Amino acid sequence: MVEPMTATAEPRVLKHQVVRAQLDHLLDGMIEGDSFPSERDLAERFDVARETVRQALRELLLAGRIERRGRTTVVARPKVVQPLAMGSYTEAALAQGLTAGRIMVGWTDLVADELLAETLTIDVGAPVLQLERVLTTDGFRVGLETTRLPAHRYPGLADSFDYRSSLYAEIRRRGIAFTRTVDTIETTLPDAREAALLTVDTRTPMFLLNRISYDQNDVPIEQRRSLYRGDRMTFTTTMRA
Amino acid sequence: MVEPMTATAEPRVLKHQVVRAQLDHLLDGMIEGDSFPSERDLAERFDVARETVRQALRELLLAGRIERRGRTTVVARPKVVQPLAMGSYTEAALAQGLTAGRIMVGWTDLVADELLAETLTIDVGAPVLQLERVLTTDGFRVGLETTRLPAHRYPGLADSFDYRSSLYAEIRRRGIAFTRTVDTIETTLPDAREAALLTVDTRTPMFLLNRISYDQNDVPIEQRRSLYRGDRMTFTTTMRA
Repeated sequence: MVEPMTATAEPRVLKHQVVRAQLDHLLDGMIEGDSFPSERDLAERFDVARETVRQALRELLLAGRIERRGRTTVVARPKVVQPLAMGSYTEAALAQGLTAGRIMVGWTDLVADELLAETLTIDVGAPVLQLERVLTTDGFRVGLETTRLPAHRYPGLADSFDYRSSLYAEIRRRGIAFTRTVDTIETTLPDAREAALLTVDTRTPMFLLNRISYDQNDVPIEQRRSLYRGDRMTFTTTMRA
Repeated sequence: MVEPMTATAEPRVLKHQVVRAQLDHLLDGMIEGDSFPSERDLAERFDVARETVRQALRELLLAGRIERRGRTTVVARPKVVQPLAMGSYTEAALAQGLTAGRIMVGWTDLVADELLAETLTIDVGAPVLQLERVLTTDGFRVGLETTRLPAHRYPGLADSFDYRSSLYAEIRRRGIAFTRTVDTIETTLPDAREAALLTVDTRTPMFLLNRISYDQNDVPIEQRRSLYRGDRMTFTTTMRA
């Protein structure tokens, strides 16, 4: 399928688009782990400047289609496809036959400021428990999850909870049912700390999901901030009339 | 609320985080159009290097919280909040009291390659009509929408359709009902042409929604690619058990 030309397409832009289309076509014929041609080889093959190839390769890298392994570049594994759902990250991963893991970053005792108190419908100054974990899929770091819970509802949680397991399952065991979740989905760039925790470049676009979950009495259970690597994750949703 | 310190937080990262937190706090007290202090003023006020302030300002700019107007920097308008829904872009905008507009980029006659034929369940080589439009909200460019339709189902469309109106409404008028949509949501960076059409920096994270819509007989209606400015758009979704 030929790309249409438009009034806004200048020669420099067009050349870049042609190279991107050729690289996409090349990638379609390759599988995960295949070694990808070098910048120099590609510049010669397509008869363009190395700078044009370099820009296109950088885009493929940030898009998670290729990855560096030492000095070579290989075709990256496909993105993890995750349904937008109320369930936990673990449940979604297991449903796809992937292993889900978690790496502890830390428990933090917070005190609710005005915004957090309003969000969790607790008093200003009430204790809040914050749990921060890195999410892994098949051993790869894909997300950073920060959960804030009203501490009085979960006595002993920080001592008894196995951080490698599902927090949703633990909350359900305490007799609390997830009946409604409200999510906002944004894109963002990671800050330096987040980039380090997720082993990405700070220029990699990320998903930022902010969720408030409500229980059977419509009381907020948690406020959750999930940062997912945009180069490794695709969300899906099916809607019906 | 004090940011927690962790084992991975190095001094340089911490200083950047502190400046970001202070700028966020500053922004919380300002409204759209307020003029934002200069890089030099902020560096003096927080007693940090101008490079540290510059990095934090760049993040706020790409996040759509501040924007440049000539030589000054002002607080940006809040992001447009759009529910993830089956309806058209127009309907979602109107429901929020915003005006929705469209700028024509072009009609293109395509021929289905294998992938597109499979997606639209038409024959390889069958004619496909492609419509590309820039979406605007209250006059600002927020998205770029590329719709591909099996040409045989929509005779005369390119001649009769008013590109400023809703394509969904036009399709419904032809007796076709939208009964199911399947979306994937990714993050991406715009290429040079897309960045020019949406008046953004090529480093701005974007949403990429790919949709296939199905009719009452479960036949694909359209394949749609929507690129939304991540600095101007937030999606929301509410789920129930």
